[in-house]
Amino acid sequence: MTLKNPVLAHHISSQFNEDLQEVNAKFMAMGGIVEQQVTNAIHALLDTDVNMSLDVQYQEKNVNRLELEIDEGLTLILARRHPAAIDLRMVIAMSKANTDMERIGDEALKIANIAQTLCEEGGSPRGFMETRHIGNQVRVMIHEALDAFARLDADQALEVLRADVDIDREYQSATRTLMTYMIEDPRYISRVLNVLWVLRSLERVGDHARNIAEQVIYIVKGLDVRHTSVDEIEQRVHSR
Amino acid sequence: MTLKNPVLAHHISSQFNEDLQEVNAKFMAMGGIVEQQVTNAIHALLDTDVNMSLDVQYQEKNVNRLELEIDEGLTLILARRHPAAIDLRMVIAMSKANTDMERIGDEALKIANIAQTLCEEGGSPRGFMETRHIGNQVRVMIHEALDAFARLDADQALEVLRADVDIDREYQSATRTLMTYMIEDPRYISRVLNVLWVLRSLERVGDHARNIAEQVIYIVKGLDVRHTSVDEIEQRVHSR
Repeated sequence: MTLKNPVLAHHISSQFNEDLQEVNAKFMAMGGIVEQQVTNAIHALLDTDVNMSLDVQYQEKNVNRLELEIDEGLTLILARRHPAAIDLRMVIAMSKANTDMERIGDEALKIANIAQTLCEEGGSPRGFMETRHIGNQVRVMIHEALDAFARLDADQALEVLRADVDIDREYQSATRTLMTYMIEDPRYISRVLNVLWVLRSLERVGDHARNIAEQVIYIVKGLDVRHTSVDEIEQRVHSR
Repeated sequence: MTLKNPVLAHHISSQFNEDLQEVNAKFMAMGGIVEQQVTNAIHALLDTDVNMSLDVQYQEKNVNRLELEIDEGLTLILARRHPAAIDLRMVIAMSKANTDMERIGDEALKIANIAQTLCEEGGSPRGFMETRHIGNQVRVMIHEALDAFARLDADQALEVLRADVDIDREYQSATRTLMTYMIEDPRYISRVLNVLWVLRSLERVGDHARNIAEQVIYIVKGLDVRHTSVDEIEQRVHSR
């Protein structure tokens, strides 16, 4: 994956490049882990599979360690190599995206913990269809965001931003559905509430994937597109 | 506030210092706004005061703008001044804390939006005592975290980390209480659920304040204390 990264490709032999390559490898490894954590957390919930939950919990330490190592590596690059222009943007963007990846891992952990509770209680009667649907979309978003980052592909990043708009809408709709479940049958309030927390976590994961995608556009185009509507971002990206 | 900052005090006349002072002033201004946003959002909710909600919503644009300006300023400092040691840590920490401050503003906005909904519905019967209590604690945490950042006070930062442990415990307890309210009287499920979302937001605000406090320790002590227990942090801080 690192070889496809245009920043790494444009000065193959520099010391900056060697340092960045090392951090980039960790960044991509961490991305792979958190993507798997989200996948496993959703499986744990939907298939009431406690082992999957344990796996998500087990990986947390690795994600935390990688987060610290990546930031340490980036700080050393800034201190020693004084990167400029796209190289500097790459370092800054990776630092921001690093935080978002760790938070995705956190949300996966919250889902895994809830899955464990629901396993012990014998599963939830309602809300799993919504979870499966939004869960699948969010997994695709993480994958696409990390792939866009690996290849520095602004168009793919734009797709992620568009997907997040859908997720937010579907999350709102699913929340309303689950609330009617609770009102219809108050015996299940506690269980349905757990599913609501899961959906909230998935919606947050979507936000973090969007943040990562925004950083891709920052690296490639030099545009800070946070707090900007997708339509406006699209215009600005394509006018460069 | 900027004059008390030891990083700014230790080389009064450098160009780095002038640039950092400018960014620092924006950072502190943003901190003041988000602190006020949280205060107003809680007031809006507890006193069913729609004007307070509108004020929180109005400030969002300013917070977003400041976030972008602060990151832009920090990027320019990195590109032009090549800071090292504590100066570099200050820049990196401010970049991380900037994200946390903006997220605090986001959570305040969510609370304000819920307050507006509850105002229209005629307030919520239950859960306000818990909200008032946790809300007050969280407001103190933000204030202390920003003050610790302004004065680079690692001991004050430690206090914030300790406070977050309390918040998390009280949040868990309040959540259980609100769940029993829902089960006891399902007519209020929708309203109590809104209060639950508020508590969730306040708990997140506490996490962001903790993150900012961790950055203070990073600047002052050169220690990355994320993912470390408060007791261990205390030991490591005091052995330096």
